[in-house]
Amino acid sequence: MALRQIYYTTYDVVSGSANRRSQIFQVIITALIVLNVVFVILETEHDIRQGNEDLFELVENVSLTVFVIEYATRLVVYRANPKYANRRFGLLRLVCSPLMLVDLAVILPFFLPFLGVDARVVRIIRLLRLFSVFKLARMSVSMRLFATVIREKMPDMMMALFILFMLLTLASSLMYFLEKDAQPDKFSSIPSSMWWGVVTLTTIGYGDTVPVTPLGKLIAAGVAILGIAVFAIPAGIMASAFSDVRRKLQKQNFCPNCGEPI
Amino acid sequence: MALRQIYYTTYDVVSGSANRRSQIFQVIITALIVLNVVFVILETEHDIRQGNEDLFELVENVSLTVFVIEYATRLVVYRANPKYANRRFGLLRLVCSPLMLVDLAVILPFFLPFLGVDARVVRIIRLLRLFSVFKLARMSVSMRLFATVIREKMPDMMMALFILFMLLTLASSLMYFLEKDAQPDKFSSIPSSMWWGVVTLTTIGYGDTVPVTPLGKLIAAGVAILGIAVFAIPAGIMASAFSDVRRKLQKQNFCPNCGEPI
Amino acid sequence: MALRQIYYTTYDVVSGSANRRSQIFQVIITALIVLNVVFVILETEHDIRQGNEDLFELVENVSLTVFVIEYATRLVVYRANPKYANRRFGLLRLVCSPLMLVDLAVILPFFLPFLGVDARVVRIIRLLRLFSVFKLARMSVSMRLFATVIREKMPDMMMALFILFMLLTLASSLMYFLEKDAQPDKFSSIPSSMWWGVVTLTTIGYGDTVPVTPLGKLIAAGVAILGIAVFAIPAGIMASAFSDVRRKLQKQNFCPNCGEPI
Amino acid sequence: MALRQIYYTTYDVVSGSANRRSQIFQVIITALIVLNVVFVILETEHDIRQGNEDLFELVENVSLTVFVIEYATRLVVYRANPKYANRRFGLLRLVCSPLMLVDLAVILPFFLPFLGVDARVVRIIRLLRLFSVFKLARMSVSMRLFATVIREKMPDMMMALFILFMLLTLASSLMYFLEKDAQPDKFSSIPSSMWWGVVTLTTIGYGDTVPVTPLGKLIAAGVAILGIAVFAIPAGIMASAFSDVRRKLQKQNFCPNCGEPI
Repeated sequence: MALRQIYYTTYDVVSGSANRRSQIFQVIITALIVLNVVFVILETEHDIRQGNEDLFELVENVSLTVFVIEYATRLVVYRANPKYANRRFGLLRLVCSPLMLVDLAVILPFFLPFLGVDARVVRIIRLLRLFSVFKLARMSVSMRLFATVIREKMPDMMMALFILFMLLTLASSLMYFLEKDAQPDKFSSIPSSMWWGVVTLTTIGYGDTVPVTPLGKLIAAGVAILGIAVFAIPAGIMASAFSDVRRKLQKQNFCPNCGEPI
Repeated sequence: MALRQIYYTTYDVVSGSANRRSQIFQVIITALIVLNVVFVILETEHDIRQGNEDLFELVENVSLTVFVIEYATRLVVYRANPKYANRRFGLLRLVCSPLMLVDLAVILPFFLPFLGVDARVVRIIRLLRLFSVFKLARMSVSMRLFATVIREKMPDMMMALFILFMLLTLASSLMYFLEKDAQPDKFSSIPSSMWWGVVTLTTIGYGDTVPVTPLGKLIAAGVAILGIAVFAIPAGIMASAFSDVRRKLQKQNFCPNCGEPI
Repeated sequence: MALRQIYYTTYDVVSGSANRRSQIFQVIITALIVLNVVFVILETEHDIRQGNEDLFELVENVSLTVFVIEYATRLVVYRANPKYANRRFGLLRLVCSPLMLVDLAVILPFFLPFLGVDARVVRIIRLLRLFSVFKLARMSVSMRLFATVIREKMPDMMMALFILFMLLTLASSLMYFLEKDAQPDKFSSIPSSMWWGVVTLTTIGYGDTVPVTPLGKLIAAGVAILGIAVFAIPAGIMASAFSDVRRKLQKQNFCPNCGEPI
Repeated sequence: MALRQIYYTTYDVVSGSANRRSQIFQVIITALIVLNVVFVILETEHDIRQGNEDLFELVENVSLTVFVIEYATRLVVYRANPKYANRRFGLLRLVCSPLMLVDLAVILPFFLPFLGVDARVVRIIRLLRLFSVFKLARMSVSMRLFATVIREKMPDMMMALFILFMLLTLASSLMYFLEKDAQPDKFSSIPSSMWWGVVTLTTIGYGDTVPVTPLGKLIAAGVAILGIAVFAIPAGIMASAFSDVRRKLQKQNFCPNCGEPI
């Protein structure tokens, strides 16, 4: 009886219920994730790492241990979650859910030494811990709003992306034929020319690849003006999507655990 | 009788009806178009083409043959299309319809050797096959949405373009008079100065042509700030157009062949 | 009687009424304006002007003569315009109306030789003829829509501009103090630093003036992200303004001469 | 009695009521603020300051004296303001209100000589007077609209900012690992790489830090296209927020002193 209660209490804490104990747990985990991301970023700065290797290793080990324990606990208490408890392969379904896969990637560096993997590879895989920022999503109402916007407007955004790719392909191919003789190093092929296309159509304009022939400049000017319209489409989709979905969500309630409507 | 049935079945398949056989045909043609575009792009990359000339030639010949057969079939079965069958010059009308002209451009390289055209010209004309991406439009519902948006908001976009051109002309002329003495190579004439104007008003800002005189910078700053407003107009038009047209289209049905409402 | 009729017919023609004769006159004047703008632009291109000086001079003289005659005619027939005929200083009011001032600027080069002004000055004043594109506005319905949008949303746009200026002043001053020691030539003063500010806040980013110190880059990153929000305001104003005003205008009729509601 | 009337009249004048005397006072203070900001900006331009040191010092001293008197007056008449008069620590609450803190910063250079602070520090602190542009906010109705927009849409903007930071962190980390070998000076660490990330995601694109490896360019192209969507979110939020809040505010009245609804 007592064990059963501990089991369900533990599930309540790690699954992000609305009670006080769970909230404290969430705050600690969130703080640890943010600390981790900051440390992964700062570790690459040579002047900061030098002399503080011990500190970096300590934070690394402590947080990794906490994340491994948290992950293991989630697996142990999965039977308390009605979404997985009574279905076949419930544990496998849980392991394969998107946020648990992120968690697995986060704790991957923990297991690598046991597998005899080279230390250099570990350092690159450590970057995966940056994905743990997505764990914050589990706690955020706003993130759910954004996820709904993305889900609902995905077909329109895909269409906008398709039009962008068509324009990009045509413009880059044209620019390749116009500029390849004048700048054989920069417009050496259509894929190279597409770097110019992306930088121009997104209005970034680094200036590392620029048409120099009069005809190339004329076509580039046309593409740039067309690019304004292409750029305006996702802005328009997002603008309408955002206000629509927000209004819809405010009229509903959502399960704080899984983000699904109840 | 059997021949007549084959005739109408063939029309159903190539014209993109809703039955299963036609859908399979569409998927094959679409895959071939995408493959073709990818190969045209990769062919320009020297390292990839070298040693794979045979593969590129094979894909080229096979897909060109398929496209020629498809084009010829469309011409043969045009009498099954009520849009062209019972009108005078029906075949000519079909040939001159926008998507058939794109198809004609795509298969143009097939006929050039018979006309004794130089091989180098063929390679440039081969670029036309990129236009075959527009054939994908024939199959897409979203593309129809976008086409309707463009058709309905064309006058507003033209007005926005006219204002952009007026601002571009005035700003570039002014900048030519202010900068021609300081940078005679970059602001050598108003058309040259317009390259600066387009790059600035679209907020691309390559940095290859930049005002250096204090007065030139002052006017450029004013033009840049005005440019934000000019940029905001098409975004505004698109934003409202998109949600309006989508709502309208969702209430209607469209002919899957021609995109016209039924 | 006949003279009076000619007087009023002439007014109808030059003032842009809806009858056939006036429309033909408008088309001719519009064509002449466009031709003029194109010639002013091309004249600055050395390769094009050389050898064609006679052609450029002919177009210059013919169109200038037509514009002078048109301007004089407008002055003569002003009594047929009820807006100016029965008011005191009617002729002066007409001369000082915005579009007539543009016309006066356009024909200014005609009078300069009589005043003994140097030829070089004439060439710069010739640029004023570019303003004649605004005369096209007199004929355009879409331009009236745009003018109404500007008139109605002017206070909001002014507020957006004021916020932009505040952010620009603060950001540029801060950047001046952070970068002046590292780049004394580029961030030599706050006005110099404002060139960086405008280029950054409008997201143009030429790259001619870029922060290099770590603190400068940090503040610049913050300003750039704030700049997205500042940029979003005019886009938002324009987006809503455009759809609102268009809907309103479609329910009303406007005087085709003066753009005022009737 | 007379003293009491002077006390309340003074409060009316400095607090920006709607009567004539207060308006004249506001115009004078506004003019002085604008003059001050212009002088702080121009003072950094060496050619302008040289020979005009006396003028700059005069404007500095006169305006500083006026600002100190205004600040002191506000403190003296605080009992006439019902918002602070009858509450505990009313004076402290007034001093700590945002606009009064700005005022305090503006007059700070006045007190520094008494504290024996070095003259060089005074010159840098003088920059704080630029913040007096915020005092203009106190007088503007439009600014109140903008403040309401910011207050209401803060959670959405924060979410957009959080997504931007997540994308920025992931993209910059990835780019660091891809480019650090090819450009060890520009992509020396993740924080350095984040400069590239901000410049790219805001579509500024200075061009000082650009990926050069094929894989780096490919990922950068993906980030740039994703950046369009990220950029579209705040534009969408602002677009809807602006029209919503304006409509709401037009139906209400606001206290001209504090901006709170009455």
